[in-house]
Amino acid sequence: MLKAPDHQVAGHQAHDRNLGPLVDDSGHFFKPLQDGDRGSREVAFYTSFSSNTKVPSQIRRFYPAFYGTQLLEASDGSGLLPHLVLQDLVSSRRKPAIMDIKIGSRTWYPQALEAYIERCLQKDREYTSLSLGFRISGLQLPGSKESELWKPAKKVVQGYTVDDVKLVLRKFVSSNSSVNSDSDPDCSFAPSIYGGSSGILSQLMELKAWFEDQTLYHFNSCSVLMFYDRDSVLKGGSSGAEIKLIDFAHVVEGRGVIDHNFLGGLCSLIKFVSDVLTTPTNSSLEGSENDGISTGNSIGE
Amino acid sequence: MLKAPDHQVAGHQAHDRNLGPLVDDSGHFFKPLQDGDRGSREVAFYTSFSSNTKVPSQIRRFYPAFYGTQLLEASDGSGLLPHLVLQDLVSSRRKPAIMDIKIGSRTWYPQALEAYIERCLQKDREYTSLSLGFRISGLQLPGSKESELWKPAKKVVQGYTVDDVKLVLRKFVSSNSSVNSDSDPDCSFAPSIYGGSSGILSQLMELKAWFEDQTLYHFNSCSVLMFYDRDSVLKGGSSGAEIKLIDFAHVVEGRGVIDHNFLGGLCSLIKFVSDVLTTPTNSSLEGSENDGISTGNSIGE
Repeated sequence: MLKAPDHQVAGHQAHDRNLGPLVDDSGHFFKPLQDGDRGSREVAFYTSFSSNTKVPSQIRRFYPAFYGTQLLEASDGSGLLPHLVLQDLVSSRRKPAIMDIKIGSRTWYPQALEAYIERCLQKDREYTSLSLGFRISGLQLPGSKESELWKPAKKVVQGYTVDDVKLVLRKFVSSNSSVNSDSDPDCSFAPSIYGGSSGILSQLMELKAWFEDQTLYHFNSCSVLMFYDRDSVLKGGSSGAEIKLIDFAHVVEGRGVIDHNFLGGLCSLIKFVSDVLTTPTNSSLEGSENDGISTGNSIGE
Repeated sequence: MLKAPDHQVAGHQAHDRNLGPLVDDSGHFFKPLQDGDRGSREVAFYTSFSSNTKVPSQIRRFYPAFYGTQLLEASDGSGLLPHLVLQDLVSSRRKPAIMDIKIGSRTWYPQALEAYIERCLQKDREYTSLSLGFRISGLQLPGSKESELWKPAKKVVQGYTVDDVKLVLRKFVSSNSSVNSDSDPDCSFAPSIYGGSSGILSQLMELKAWFEDQTLYHFNSCSVLMFYDRDSVLKGGSSGAEIKLIDFAHVVEGRGVIDHNFLGGLCSLIKFVSDVLTTPTNSSLEGSENDGISTGNSIGE
């Protein structure tokens, strides 16, 4: 039996007879091929990546497993549609905390169509992509009570400022960040989720080292999904913190050049996560500290 | 006595009664303040940077020394103009090889005026900035004969493709790359110029480590100047290889965010320089190797 995923935080959703991904109860995630070149490019990427011997095995774990494509009844009832068959990353987890972070100050790429470039550029400037090198696309954070779930609406997430992003990265690893809580996040779980030899920071650093060298692919408009077992952490257990890259509809060949756009954004995210670890209190205020240039001039050309 | 610099490879030049920088014979470089906010922003940057105690001393050596501003007769005869008084980086060197590399896939910044953004974006897409994360703005390479100097015209440099950039980075450290030479560069000086504990790669890596952490400044449209003593190297002597950052008319405050645009481009340059060292022959062909995605689809949205 296929159903809409319980823990999807961004992208098209299969609820209310819309077209979206489906999951089974054996750990598979069925993603309908997107329109136009997007769908075929994502299949081409998974096919290439899964058989590319130049990708180190310790890097593969940051990607969902790929099981080919399959014709399935689409969730919107429009008939049979080809779906990517992927590893379901989170549904086996009980109450996962999840954050979807789209990496790169630029989500478009030189070869794309002009209309698409313009649309992306406008969004990149409107959201935090241009300023931060990444933007949060969605998140969910279960509370300590069974029914509590903090899952801000898409419009809210799209309106995040730089300071909001800093705050959310702190709330994500705090014990006191319940639904719409305004209390200062305590970051008490930061050492076990972001920190440590198997924590999220360490995984991001491993990914970064690969991106400093790999010239195989340019991961335009891809996301890093960060997640952990909120329930287990609240009970003092292990976090099971993981990162995975997702969404490869705009991946193009690297042609001998590193993906400097993704790498720059990844380094910016690493710096923010690292800041939460090193200054667990009041770090959200540091951005407004003025260490820079003092000039009375407005900034134009 | 002030005169136009002997070894300028990019930017406005003071020859033929144009407005440009001047040098004296005591190692000073006088740069006329640019129009509008550019000039005042560059002064503001040098003033802030030179007194900022948060900048590590080992990083300061990558910047020209700053001696304040001074009113001077402009090189175009237009009267007294304020000039930045800076360290003259190369004129004390005999026959320096120089390359000016503008870092960043994006040379504009969110706060700039729309018309300026559009002009920059167009150039970034036209030149290699967008694809490589940097572009060569100018270079000179003295030959073994006294009169020989390879100094491609601005138009030629602006037309460089990705493969041209790879080739030029190899020619820059080759013994057989004389004026307009078409022979395959031997990269015989790569170990002494790019390599070694005090070579260019090592200096770029040190700069990179700082950019992974510093959130003081965003160096929009800045260049890395790489230079060495060609004459000395041709005679088997030491290279005196150095990098310096120059051109700070578009630097803005970092406000708690790393300069992911500069960092991404710097990492891309590091990868290219490193490739010259690890594959001194035929590396210019590697870019055309197809390790990526095989799909018959054209790339659009």
